[in-house]
Amino acid sequence: MNNEMRAVVIHAPGEFTVETVPVPKPGRGEVLVEVKSVAICGSDPGIFNGKVLQNGWPPYYPFTAGHEFAAQVVEVGEGVGSLKAGDRVAGEAHCGCGICENCKKGFYNLCLNYGRAGHHHYGHNTPGCYAQYQVYDQKALTLLPDNVTYDQGAMVDTTGIAYNALRLTGVEPGGWTVVIGPGPMGIAAMLLASAMGSRTVVIGRGRRLALAGELGADVLVDFEAVEDPVAEVRRITGGGAHQVIEAAGNATAYYESIQMARKGGHVALISIPAQDGQQAALKSLIMNQITLHGVRANPNCSKTVLDMMSQGILPVEKMITHRFPLEQIHEAFDTFTGRKDGAVKVVVHPND
Amino acid sequence: MNNEMRAVVIHAPGEFTVETVPVPKPGRGEVLVEVKSVAICGSDPGIFNGKVLQNGWPPYYPFTAGHEFAAQVVEVGEGVGSLKAGDRVAGEAHCGCGICENCKKGFYNLCLNYGRAGHHHYGHNTPGCYAQYQVYDQKALTLLPDNVTYDQGAMVDTTGIAYNALRLTGVEPGGWTVVIGPGPMGIAAMLLASAMGSRTVVIGRGRRLALAGELGADVLVDFEAVEDPVAEVRRITGGGAHQVIEAAGNATAYYESIQMARKGGHVALISIPAQDGQQAALKSLIMNQITLHGVRANPNCSKTVLDMMSQGILPVEKMITHRFPLEQIHEAFDTFTGRKDGAVKVVVHPND
Amino acid sequence: MNNEMRAVVIHAPGEFTVETVPVPKPGRGEVLVEVKSVAICGSDPGIFNGKVLQNGWPPYYPFTAGHEFAAQVVEVGEGVGSLKAGDRVAGEAHCGCGICENCKKGFYNLCLNYGRAGHHHYGHNTPGCYAQYQVYDQKALTLLPDNVTYDQGAMVDTTGIAYNALRLTGVEPGGWTVVIGPGPMGIAAMLLASAMGSRTVVIGRGRRLALAGELGADVLVDFEAVEDPVAEVRRITGGGAHQVIEAAGNATAYYESIQMARKGGHVALISIPAQDGQQAALKSLIMNQITLHGVRANPNCSKTVLDMMSQGILPVEKMITHRFPLEQIHEAFDTFTGRKDGAVKVVVHPND
Amino acid sequence: MNNEMRAVVIHAPGEFTVETVPVPKPGRGEVLVEVKSVAICGSDPGIFNGKVLQNGWPPYYPFTAGHEFAAQVVEVGEGVGSLKAGDRVAGEAHCGCGICENCKKGFYNLCLNYGRAGHHHYGHNTPGCYAQYQVYDQKALTLLPDNVTYDQGAMVDTTGIAYNALRLTGVEPGGWTVVIGPGPMGIAAMLLASAMGSRTVVIGRGRRLALAGELGADVLVDFEAVEDPVAEVRRITGGGAHQVIEAAGNATAYYESIQMARKGGHVALISIPAQDGQQAALKSLIMNQITLHGVRANPNCSKTVLDMMSQGILPVEKMITHRFPLEQIHEAFDTFTGRKDGAVKVVVHPND
Repeated sequence: MNNEMRAVVIHAPGEFTVETVPVPKPGRGEVLVEVKSVAICGSDPGIFNGKVLQNGWPPYYPFTAGHEFAAQVVEVGEGVGSLKAGDRVAGEAHCGCGICENCKKGFYNLCLNYGRAGHHHYGHNTPGCYAQYQVYDQKALTLLPDNVTYDQGAMVDTTGIAYNALRLTGVEPGGWTVVIGPGPMGIAAMLLASAMGSRTVVIGRGRRLALAGELGADVLVDFEAVEDPVAEVRRITGGGAHQVIEAAGNATAYYESIQMARKGGHVALISIPAQDGQQAALKSLIMNQITLHGVRANPNCSKTVLDMMSQGILPVEKMITHRFPLEQIHEAFDTFTGRKDGAVKVVVHPND
Repeated sequence: MNNEMRAVVIHAPGEFTVETVPVPKPGRGEVLVEVKSVAICGSDPGIFNGKVLQNGWPPYYPFTAGHEFAAQVVEVGEGVGSLKAGDRVAGEAHCGCGICENCKKGFYNLCLNYGRAGHHHYGHNTPGCYAQYQVYDQKALTLLPDNVTYDQGAMVDTTGIAYNALRLTGVEPGGWTVVIGPGPMGIAAMLLASAMGSRTVVIGRGRRLALAGELGADVLVDFEAVEDPVAEVRRITGGGAHQVIEAAGNATAYYESIQMARKGGHVALISIPAQDGQQAALKSLIMNQITLHGVRANPNCSKTVLDMMSQGILPVEKMITHRFPLEQIHEAFDTFTGRKDGAVKVVVHPND
Repeated sequence: MNNEMRAVVIHAPGEFTVETVPVPKPGRGEVLVEVKSVAICGSDPGIFNGKVLQNGWPPYYPFTAGHEFAAQVVEVGEGVGSLKAGDRVAGEAHCGCGICENCKKGFYNLCLNYGRAGHHHYGHNTPGCYAQYQVYDQKALTLLPDNVTYDQGAMVDTTGIAYNALRLTGVEPGGWTVVIGPGPMGIAAMLLASAMGSRTVVIGRGRRLALAGELGADVLVDFEAVEDPVAEVRRITGGGAHQVIEAAGNATAYYESIQMARKGGHVALISIPAQDGQQAALKSLIMNQITLHGVRANPNCSKTVLDMMSQGILPVEKMITHRFPLEQIHEAFDTFTGRKDGAVKVVVHPND
Repeated sequence: MNNEMRAVVIHAPGEFTVETVPVPKPGRGEVLVEVKSVAICGSDPGIFNGKVLQNGWPPYYPFTAGHEFAAQVVEVGEGVGSLKAGDRVAGEAHCGCGICENCKKGFYNLCLNYGRAGHHHYGHNTPGCYAQYQVYDQKALTLLPDNVTYDQGAMVDTTGIAYNALRLTGVEPGGWTVVIGPGPMGIAAMLLASAMGSRTVVIGRGRRLALAGELGADVLVDFEAVEDPVAEVRRITGGGAHQVIEAAGNATAYYESIQMARKGGHVALISIPAQDGQQAALKSLIMNQITLHGVRANPNCSKTVLDMMSQGILPVEKMITHRFPLEQIHEAFDTFTGRKDGAVKVVVHPND
């Protein structure tokens, strides 16, 4: 194996190139992987262009971002017991310290040692996967079932967040799940809800809404074509949805999500707003005893969604519309952010 | 027994008098009770003065309101199997239809037949307890343990709502419960949380905050005396509370309640705002994976809080600062709404 | 409508005939239905032949049993708000008093007034559906979705119990559900688990095991063909199942069910044994922190399973192997109990 | 600090002496502690006399057992971020690998790498605390609040298991908790249930039953003095307990525990039987829809019970009847196993 590799290096907000850099060495408990497929996350553009510096992302320049990926293990560090060279794996962004109160309870997405003591938020505060190789803590990797491809594996982080949302809301079999926003996260939520026995309504518009329909959503609501999306959802679902998944990230979606839930229903918010204060329908929340769940990342979701992919009941890879080699990272980003050619999920193959 | 009784009759918004009216007759499944103690609810003034007409309260004039009470059964209607004359009981405001999907699941607070098909919201859409006698569905009444007084029984509805809030949030033993607003609901929440093993912080000011301290709150925060109540709570609790109970009903409380919760914490909103849209700290909710619970009424809480009173671990009656006969209803209301003489909970005894 | 009807009347243990009897009249809160399809329950033979007299079933002779059915409403009694003549409905066996602590919480399967105060256990302590007409409390009936047939509706009681089992255990998507006993209850559990995202293993033998495979079980284990069914299940599932559903009702099944669950797994027992004391693998239960759930009936399950049938994800009607008119009740019973011609679920059509 | 220390060394089943041995060195992620207080666990005699060799305890000779302790950190190994010299801590027996599926979810009591890959079961498969010093993984230690003594800290492991049991059953405030077996685990369960709002019944006999009463149990049942303990419990609790905690470890307790629970109640089994197969009341379990929880160890319980001790609501130290220096280990064990002088919990102070 070579000591050098190609990687996307960000030098300043919005300034990034593909460069030759040293291959990193795995430390204790870490493994070195050859990155096979990286999916561009909706949060990546913000990290690349410095718009989330206030969150500490990236923590310094030059920096290599990226956190949705599948890879093959090529070398293991000291003290690695669960993985070996040749293993095919999918990655998660969050790796907890393993020691704090929250990590010990399994909530490593809520690690109390964020950014220290062994915690990593790959691609955010620790170098990530837009590179041919990278080192990861063994805790951040999950074995791919034999029949799951690397491209499917690169969908694990996104799909895992959607699964975390549905795990929090619960899924009522035979009930209704409403998804606001048919981006990759929203479509993943729709596919998961279907696989768990729910009927689904997806709210959006254009090509992405159509794709949700092609992938199996029971009812589509074009919010531009109906007068009152809340009333429409309440009519379709017979009084509101059992669970509502907000994955659009705009003020209307935050506000209407609660109004779309039935008495006793559950609402999950996935999209992170820029400002803390947002209008929420709190009278509806109280009068209808609704539960609102904040969703942070995807703790302990990777194995579940990989097993579902292996079962053949979670065709998330059908959202992948474009594939690029690493050297075309700019074109890949332009395609993703501009939604060119109906782009939904765009993946990069660093070793093609 | 006489065929006539004294009752508070509301004739128009803000216009009410004590009058002699006929004693009602219990229908099938109903009992007639002699009302022993009525607690004035924070929502009663709005019903008396017509400010909640938009909710359908009261549904017509003349109307008799009141819903927090304890009483003695004097006569049972047809088909009543669980109660008999002489039984001492406490009442609830909500009585579900018993037939709809939600009622059958135990969520009669979320009855799908609100206002029809056997549903009653006593004192709101059905005549209530500011009277010497009243008829109630047997489902709305719970037997008082022998050692629980009528005044304690009149606290069941308020205490039950606080219990519903804590049942939704869960109570982490050894953890921290923050209560915003030391009114009757807030103090009840504090007493319940203490009885369930939690440490408590109460946020408020003046006489009511002091009372919370006298009744056992571990830490008091005078929001007028500290610069940043959120920071103060986070400091006291070591990173935010395990559960936060909002019982103040103002915009600041709605907004800051989420910010006072720790990562993975739970927040319950009890106070019903006038407007649906309220500012909520949704970025905090998502980044810290917090759960926000709307709280509606007190389904299946009466027996629990009565049993706790009987055990001697729930001294909610210590909140009762004033007692009045029914004839002094105006003075009772003035005392309650004006918080005269440090009034917290004011009860009326219709048969004294 | 006629005042007389045909019904199966049991006169003594094992002695029953089809006779002409009066059509009953619906009381308050009750409806009269024309019974369209009745499924023979595994517990019916015991009721017909008097083997469960110790449970109070039947409570007297002559008696008409039967409790798994779908029907059409022909007349409504006083105070019925939720149903009208012409409505198509499915029935449940348990109808709670609606007043006791358990009923008010939604656990009407655990009604504290069993056999009195409005409680009915249709076909057990109250006359049931082996008749052309019968009266039922409106609470015991659930509307059929338009695209669900009466035969499907007759499967609701069985399927609902299986759903209650899975609701108690939870269903891990992408995980493994093991079902012991591919009778109607077990196959229903397998179909439900599949529809909720689980992989399934069914343990049994012969025609019924084969049917489970035809209906979609992922792995079949013939307990006569393997040396150690526990080891086999642990191998297939990679360390034990996430949830195990016992639906065979023999000592081996009770004992091995716990041993088939993984660390932290859940086991549900559906089949009611004759004797209270049974051997259970309690050391395994403790060392692996397993949860064992007793399953009683199907509270609040009817709407869920009907909605899933309507969705097309729950083909329980494929278990129906035989259909008989009411006059052939003896042949129907013989077919069912003798498992003639591969009989699995046998239904009776009282009005054909 | 010295390089040598005194420790209890087991050389063969039942053969152990206090000897001078080298002080161990902390590895990566480990700390060296000076052991201040060790509580003799009910499982220790079995480990000392080789009766649990079939479980792999001890894994070899010579071996130092012991796992219930409090200590002070004297030296930290590489990569220890959460502890420093001088810190006062309490220990747990189970330290998970931190990498397997169960550990990552917080169930490190169910670690899939038992005995390897960083997993430790201190005092069982890894040397323990009957010594002046010992090394522990930082994950196995929890900081003592300032007002909690070392003797209280030594009660954390026992109390934590009782807490795990109650966390699994839930605690119904105002309801009834029945504890079978007033040993240290049972009394801890009683104290915890009381602190969480439950009424308590303790079943036992003699001095230990009396102690349960002195420490606050609401009702005592001497199983030798009543004809039918099940009937007695059902009478006291009005139909059975909300939660039953089995901590006696005999066949009668396993069998009757389920019969003592009310409809819908929860039962937890703590005591590990020698044989897997035990008689259990499975018909009662099913007919009353009871949930039976196996309880393994105390994952994530230490902080909770320490916080409750710090609050002053959990006086578990009142169970400590005897204290010995390490050199008197034989006398300490004889006192504990023979229940001499009313011994309940016996602690050893290795550095006195």
